[in-house]
Amino acid sequence: MDILENKPLEIRIGQHGLVKIIDCMPRLVNPGETFDHAICQAARTSYGSNDVKPSEKVNRGLIRYLFRHEHGTPFEMVNIKFYLSLPIFIARQIIRTRTASVNEYSMRYKQPKDKFFVPEVNGVRLQSTDNKQGSQEKASFEDASAFILYTEQVASEALKKNEEFEQKGIGREINRINMPLSTFTEWYWEIDFRNLLHFLSLRLDSHTQKETREYAEAMYSLCKPLAPYSFEAFEDFEIGSIRLSKLEIEAIKSRISLLSAKSTERERVEFAEKLKRLGL
Amino acid sequence: MDILENKPLEIRIGQHGLVKIIDCMPRLVNPGETFDHAICQAARTSYGSNDVKPSEKVNRGLIRYLFRHEHGTPFEMVNIKFYLSLPIFIARQIIRTRTASVNEYSMRYKQPKDKFFVPEVNGVRLQSTDNKQGSQEKASFEDASAFILYTEQVASEALKKNEEFEQKGIGREINRINMPLSTFTEWYWEIDFRNLLHFLSLRLDSHTQKETREYAEAMYSLCKPLAPYSFEAFEDFEIGSIRLSKLEIEAIKSRISLLSAKSTERERVEFAEKLKRLGL
Amino acid sequence: MDILENKPLEIRIGQHGLVKIIDCMPRLVNPGETFDHAICQAARTSYGSNDVKPSEKVNRGLIRYLFRHEHGTPFEMVNIKFYLSLPIFIARQIIRTRTASVNEYSMRYKQPKDKFFVPEVNGVRLQSTDNKQGSQEKASFEDASAFILYTEQVASEALKKNEEFEQKGIGREINRINMPLSTFTEWYWEIDFRNLLHFLSLRLDSHTQKETREYAEAMYSLCKPLAPYSFEAFEDFEIGSIRLSKLEIEAIKSRISLLSAKSTERERVEFAEKLKRLGL
Amino acid sequence: MDILENKPLEIRIGQHGLVKIIDCMPRLVNPGETFDHAICQAARTSYGSNDVKPSEKVNRGLIRYLFRHEHGTPFEMVNIKFYLSLPIFIARQIIRTRTASVNEYSMRYKQPKDKFFVPEVNGVRLQSTDNKQGSQEKASFEDASAFILYTEQVASEALKKNEEFEQKGIGREINRINMPLSTFTEWYWEIDFRNLLHFLSLRLDSHTQKETREYAEAMYSLCKPLAPYSFEAFEDFEIGSIRLSKLEIEAIKSRISLLSAKSTERERVEFAEKLKRLGL
Repeated sequence: MDILENKPLEIRIGQHGLVKIIDCMPRLVNPGETFDHAICQAARTSYGSNDVKPSEKVNRGLIRYLFRHEHGTPFEMVNIKFYLSLPIFIARQIIRTRTASVNEYSMRYKQPKDKFFVPEVNGVRLQSTDNKQGSQEKASFEDASAFILYTEQVASEALKKNEEFEQKGIGREINRINMPLSTFTEWYWEIDFRNLLHFLSLRLDSHTQKETREYAEAMYSLCKPLAPYSFEAFEDFEIGSIRLSKLEIEAIKSRISLLSAKSTERERVEFAEKLKRLGL
Repeated sequence: MDILENKPLEIRIGQHGLVKIIDCMPRLVNPGETFDHAICQAARTSYGSNDVKPSEKVNRGLIRYLFRHEHGTPFEMVNIKFYLSLPIFIARQIIRTRTASVNEYSMRYKQPKDKFFVPEVNGVRLQSTDNKQGSQEKASFEDASAFILYTEQVASEALKKNEEFEQKGIGREINRINMPLSTFTEWYWEIDFRNLLHFLSLRLDSHTQKETREYAEAMYSLCKPLAPYSFEAFEDFEIGSIRLSKLEIEAIKSRISLLSAKSTERERVEFAEKLKRLGL
Repeated sequence: MDILENKPLEIRIGQHGLVKIIDCMPRLVNPGETFDHAICQAARTSYGSNDVKPSEKVNRGLIRYLFRHEHGTPFEMVNIKFYLSLPIFIARQIIRTRTASVNEYSMRYKQPKDKFFVPEVNGVRLQSTDNKQGSQEKASFEDASAFILYTEQVASEALKKNEEFEQKGIGREINRINMPLSTFTEWYWEIDFRNLLHFLSLRLDSHTQKETREYAEAMYSLCKPLAPYSFEAFEDFEIGSIRLSKLEIEAIKSRISLLSAKSTERERVEFAEKLKRLGL
Repeated sequence: MDILENKPLEIRIGQHGLVKIIDCMPRLVNPGETFDHAICQAARTSYGSNDVKPSEKVNRGLIRYLFRHEHGTPFEMVNIKFYLSLPIFIARQIIRTRTASVNEYSMRYKQPKDKFFVPEVNGVRLQSTDNKQGSQEKASFEDASAFILYTEQVASEALKKNEEFEQKGIGREINRINMPLSTFTEWYWEIDFRNLLHFLSLRLDSHTQKETREYAEAMYSLCKPLAPYSFEAFEDFEIGSIRLSKLEIEAIKSRISLLSAKSTERERVEFAEKLKRLGL
């Protein structure tokens, strides 16, 4: 019984976006087998007991222990190969994860397809005024509509002109330079599970651009049932965790809500948020 | 005497392109010191004789030996940090070299600058008819001019509209999606010398898009005086070399110019080219 | 039909050595599926035609093309996980391949097992007189026997003493320091196929210590049926190939068997060997 | 004025151990220059303001910000090359850091030197009874002395026999297999600053074997004056920090000192320790 044969493991994002699991190791061909089992098996090598088949409870405990103590190598024994359809401006962010392997659709060899990222009205967000990034706040309907219309025009004009110069024989490697960053590309993207979890911890974060975060969320949803203990631990010890700095520990210990003067203004703001989350 | 203080080590490419050495290790602060010396020093560790200072001739021989026998690790003991100004469509090719470290200008934080790649008339090349890539053949003056004009229009329109939506407060991370691939970006790009040489062997190749090749050529020119023996060996054993396959060796040995039927059509074409280069 | 279920894929090396395929991606669960197919599928992404199912002949041609032109990334889409039982002096060589993932038996946690590498009489080779490495020439029966006897004594004494100090409660992390390099260790070793091929090209080479080479040969034998076209290409273009340097090309073109004075003595020896292989 | 010229940057460890900075990038040749400046310069690229020279206070704030938000890439723009003299059992731990480059003394080419790790009486620690590692508790003087004596005997006997078989012409690659793990080796070890900090966070930890930790501590001491803000942030946000899991946050919020039943026994012990550190 091969889980990958029976369920097409994919999630669509917007009109053209796609995240799909093509293959993985272990292939989950045996009943009860999960990524967690392969991780535990490798981790037990250090104790010379990798052929032991312990209870589920023991496996869960081991996974949690590996997580807390940053023993990352057993998680490298699992690999996942995705197929992604994504716009270039997102691809340019995701490719910064250098530990993944990529094969990409090339506009040197083939013309761009008629696939472009166009935001929905709700997706046209304003610039944040306090930090340097995009905010959650939405543009007015009028401005959003104008931006969407412009995006569509740029895309269709770019595609039309690309075809026009293609007809004149202009080389595709040159012709492509006028395509916008909203143009879709296609990837095979292969990564080991340790690095996928690191990627997710960065890209599920609220500081990540929403459009990129949606790809991380899709990978997260697709992989979660394949590694239940690992993702439970990931949520407990990574996503839902708080790191307290030395200065913050000192402040809590002294029962004061003010950080030492050695902290920066921004650290004080972050500390207040942490205290709130801790109910202190 | 610090060589990096005295010579601004940079090469301009076109109107906006730039390749500049920011720093390197060794810093060449001592007279007579080159990358080659640091490589030899590390290589000699395996013989326990890294504090020996042998003659230049011996160093040259060692570098050549390391090259021929693929002993790459001593070349990792040298690092180079570049500053690059380059259009996004080239950046997307160069970033495939995952062994380099990158810090990039971000259009999430700052608006695009008024810098775009616009080809010269000679740079508007036709699509190759026999392989899938761009060719050396140039477009007609008329077609080239039309393409250049269009490129300029796309760029100036994109910049104008970007500013317009910026004024309306649209988030930069969204606003950027309509910028064309010709838009310039800026990089700090740090790489060790082993991986730089591998990068150069791929990107100086005639199959690489000319616009990307120019960046590789600039790096090559800038680094060559810093590692004379390494680059001499690189030219002898890598760039200017020929690899003969098992089938090709058999054919030469049998004094025939035909490859065995196990070869593909394309391999036969490549073999003919090699025989020509060898005068056989 | 899962090939990994039906065949235990393993090769024994000497008394205690073992190379075993634990898992791979693709898992070969579908009839006719090989590593080659997964590689071709990923490679075709650049042409936007990865869902095409071309003939075997076309696949073979593509694999050979990728090999000749150093398009390595599609080979990264295949992963293999091995279990290795190997002595520490070999483990120390293999771990230099940093692109693999490792989980290792730890003598901090567990005592050493009663497994040591002891050479056979034929395996006690003499030091080469012309280069710095071991030679093919064998030691006298007397010397070999003395070495074997000594090796066995060191091993059994080390094990006995380790147990003695274990009984006294000495920490294993300290106790282990007197174990010899012949002590066996155990590894999970996971690597992608591109890096496995690179590893094999280095470790199948005659310059590699014989004992390490045997591990490379076992991996080679185990993987060969899983990727027939890739290994055919590997033999044609890598293992059985000759690289001619620029100076060598010039010499052949000028129909002389002497290299230019810019070459070193050693290069001349290597050139003579190449000419012999080429029948020139 | 080149800082590396004037101060021999090295720390001795025990009788034969050595950690020495051979070179670094930036080379600190300009007054006031530190690693911190190079990191800030690269980080500011994303804001297109890398040629700005802000105040020290602003630099410190930026370094702290990068640390808290895991923006690791600017730290990759700094490289350090060490020379290490270390016993094989420690080398085998440190080499697990795959992001470093290594050139090593080879016993295939040269005989072992007369350098072995021999613990001091205080260094012969007992096995921990509660976890699987070595403890802080010391062996009795008698047992420690016996272990030290045995270690010295193994070492001197191994060296003597190695020389004996060397005289008989036995190949060094074979001869070395009887050398103990206490034998010293020599390394050039090059790593970027991001990965050095990660290495230090793992290897300064109390779970690391003391003998390995001493090498991490030496690197830490040597590098600290070269990057004062980075190391201050490293101490505040990494070494001296506490990570609270989701379950721990819930417990603190509910003002209870018991973790939910979803936690393991070991997590409860760790939580008690954290509460103590926090004075809660």
